[in-house]
Amino acid sequence: MRVELLCTGDELVTGLTTDTNSPSLEARLFELGVKVRRVVLVGDVREDITQALREAATRADVVIVSGGLGPTADDFTAECAAVAAGVPLVEDAGTLQFLRERAAKRGRELTPNVARMARVPEGSEVVPNPVGAAPLFIVRMGGCRLFFLPGVPSEYRALVNGEVLPRVRAELEKRPVRTYRAFRLLHTMGIPESVLDVRVAPLARAHPRVVFGFRTHAPENQLKLMAEAPSQAEAEAALAAAEAAARQELGRAVYGADGDTYHGVLGRLLTEAKATLALAESCTGGLIATQLTGVPGASNFLMGGAVVYTEKMKTAWAGVPESLLARHGAVSRPVAIAMAEGIRAACETTYGLSVTGFAGPTGGTPEEPVGTVYCALAEAGAATRCERFSIPGDRDMVRLFAASNALELLRERLLTVAAP
Amino acid sequence: MRVELLCTGDELVTGLTTDTNSPSLEARLFELGVKVRRVVLVGDVREDITQALREAATRADVVIVSGGLGPTADDFTAECAAVAAGVPLVEDAGTLQFLRERAAKRGRELTPNVARMARVPEGSEVVPNPVGAAPLFIVRMGGCRLFFLPGVPSEYRALVNGEVLPRVRAELEKRPVRTYRAFRLLHTMGIPESVLDVRVAPLARAHPRVVFGFRTHAPENQLKLMAEAPSQAEAEAALAAAEAAARQELGRAVYGADGDTYHGVLGRLLTEAKATLALAESCTGGLIATQLTGVPGASNFLMGGAVVYTEKMKTAWAGVPESLLARHGAVSRPVAIAMAEGIRAACETTYGLSVTGFAGPTGGTPEEPVGTVYCALAEAGAATRCERFSIPGDRDMVRLFAASNALELLRERLLTVAAP
Repeated sequence: MRVELLCTGDELVTGLTTDTNSPSLEARLFELGVKVRRVVLVGDVREDITQALREAATRADVVIVSGGLGPTADDFTAECAAVAAGVPLVEDAGTLQFLRERAAKRGRELTPNVARMARVPEGSEVVPNPVGAAPLFIVRMGGCRLFFLPGVPSEYRALVNGEVLPRVRAELEKRPVRTYRAFRLLHTMGIPESVLDVRVAPLARAHPRVVFGFRTHAPENQLKLMAEAPSQAEAEAALAAAEAAARQELGRAVYGADGDTYHGVLGRLLTEAKATLALAESCTGGLIATQLTGVPGASNFLMGGAVVYTEKMKTAWAGVPESLLARHGAVSRPVAIAMAEGIRAACETTYGLSVTGFAGPTGGTPEEPVGTVYCALAEAGAATRCERFSIPGDRDMVRLFAASNALELLRERLLTVAAP
Repeated sequence: MRVELLCTGDELVTGLTTDTNSPSLEARLFELGVKVRRVVLVGDVREDITQALREAATRADVVIVSGGLGPTADDFTAECAAVAAGVPLVEDAGTLQFLRERAAKRGRELTPNVARMARVPEGSEVVPNPVGAAPLFIVRMGGCRLFFLPGVPSEYRALVNGEVLPRVRAELEKRPVRTYRAFRLLHTMGIPESVLDVRVAPLARAHPRVVFGFRTHAPENQLKLMAEAPSQAEAEAALAAAEAAARQELGRAVYGADGDTYHGVLGRLLTEAKATLALAESCTGGLIATQLTGVPGASNFLMGGAVVYTEKMKTAWAGVPESLLARHGAVSRPVAIAMAEGIRAACETTYGLSVTGFAGPTGGTPEEPVGTVYCALAEAGAATRCERFSIPGDRDMVRLFAASNALELLRERLLTVAAP
């Protein structure tokens, strides 16, 4: 099945908006075994839209068109569709009724510009929009079906998932020859992409039915496995074998799969261990606390987080002795250790985690340049672990990797405690 | 001048990579007065690339092509260019020499797959790549010039800025009729997009030479002004008049222009006022501290930030009386006020800022449902201000707007103190 995407809107060709609708739809289609053949973006220019529609309809079996269905003067995709299909625009009674009720609910009259959204090319199949005003309409041109959707991401997503993809899937299931696919996304932390590549290369050769893809999503790296086979069972089996081999090779660096998130997994580990956590953050400035509290249920394990940018607050909240700060400086191993132990004592938690470092762009010393970060993890009945890192990159990068390096100390420890 | 972009690569049509090269180039071209007419993305399919090249060359004056110039088996854009132009591929001696020296510097032999990057369509103009291996080459097909660039963002950017845009600009300067443009991006906080639109509409009518565009970048909304005129001076004058009118209409909601960032502006206001700040965050979980410390120099004003997820730490760090928590609950006006005053006292700062609320998805009460947030600002010699907000959306949205609502209390106060 040949599928093309066509997106319209001046914002897409003047750099004001990046088209993120298409990549998400492409990924969903690819999982169905369809590689999109062409994506076209055009501005709000009638002749360009009409021409692009005509061209796509001659090449493709399915064209998914988005944008230009709203109520404003620069919304004229439906008009262009009618011209391209050689039919008049007609008013869809159901849509008009829907728009009138929608306006009434908001205590408004139906204005002519809103009513314009009910006008579709004659012969279209019209499907109501569950989360917005403009409907989806489907036009046939020769052997091609064109789906017209609003470009607003929430409406686009709802109609793609609820209407477009099910129809494409049904169409695909009617076709005799099919390639079946199975996917797994493995999330890794702590392995640079270049190292991941080298370690995985032999696996790729041993699993010829599986494509190994890499994707960096700092600070993590993702390994995408895609198996292809003549049946779904064979694809699943090939995927399972490749996944087992990858997990064997990468060990604990694989923190999760598919929809897992790093901080969600960490929260689960803490909750399962019935452990509590306190944070003392200097250079990360609250980033670790923000990341952990982004996951619902963080109040189960996170007792408190202290952003201790000044020496005074390192002493007041994390109990770091003034003498230690004077002797070693705030960015040092002894201070990181004292912060972790002090914050744990202050919050009476299972673990105390600390970060201190130079995030840049200025600061640092010849021995401890910008990018130097100390992370420490304290707990009862064990020596406090402390590690020093030299993190390349700008302020954002240093902070991002300082946070994940600190959390890796914790994850490592939680995994060891759970399965020594 | 009719300009089109063509980007090749399977990663662009399978959702693995979002094309961010094109939007940045589009914005640069638009500033030169050129609105890109079409952007086409195709996968690594020879016939699709060749066909797309031929079609673009018949329509456009300039086509900027990217991707598929590397050393691997799926890089064959140069081949497709030769087929589309009806010429053979030839080896460019200068590029071959460059590639050989580049390999030698890395202590390597020139391998055949790397040497392949020296092969360009006969008659091409070849320009060395300052930051990578594959050169830029320029092919003429009829009246159209096609620029071929690597898709790697750093190489793409270097060649676009250093070679492509200067040539496009020179071409434009030869043309008799020119439109001059001037731009201003105004950043606003605290005004919903729909309200911004309504308030700005009369200005747009009064400034016909200026296009008013909107862009939501939660929690802020941006207003983009673009002036067009027959001379640069007239464009600048029209822009200045429209900007003044917009600033007049929107007042303090406009926090900055162009490259300004919200937290950078706030940091500057605090530093200029020689004021210091302490934070007590509950539902935002460290987000405000993270945002403020993301800007270099935050240690000038941010003394400490406490993430007080538990009642115990609200009492220990922010000095909230246990009786107050028992009587009113953690999400309440009295507790928000006590947090702001307590954290200010603990850190001995000019201002104390607090946030407490229900971020969801669970929690809340019938009177204070999910999305209820109290923000308070304490200072010496003035009553503590406290506001209640009902924020729609998911956990991320509630946290994001809770943080910006709290900081808006502070910004408002700093502006009033600076210019009462």
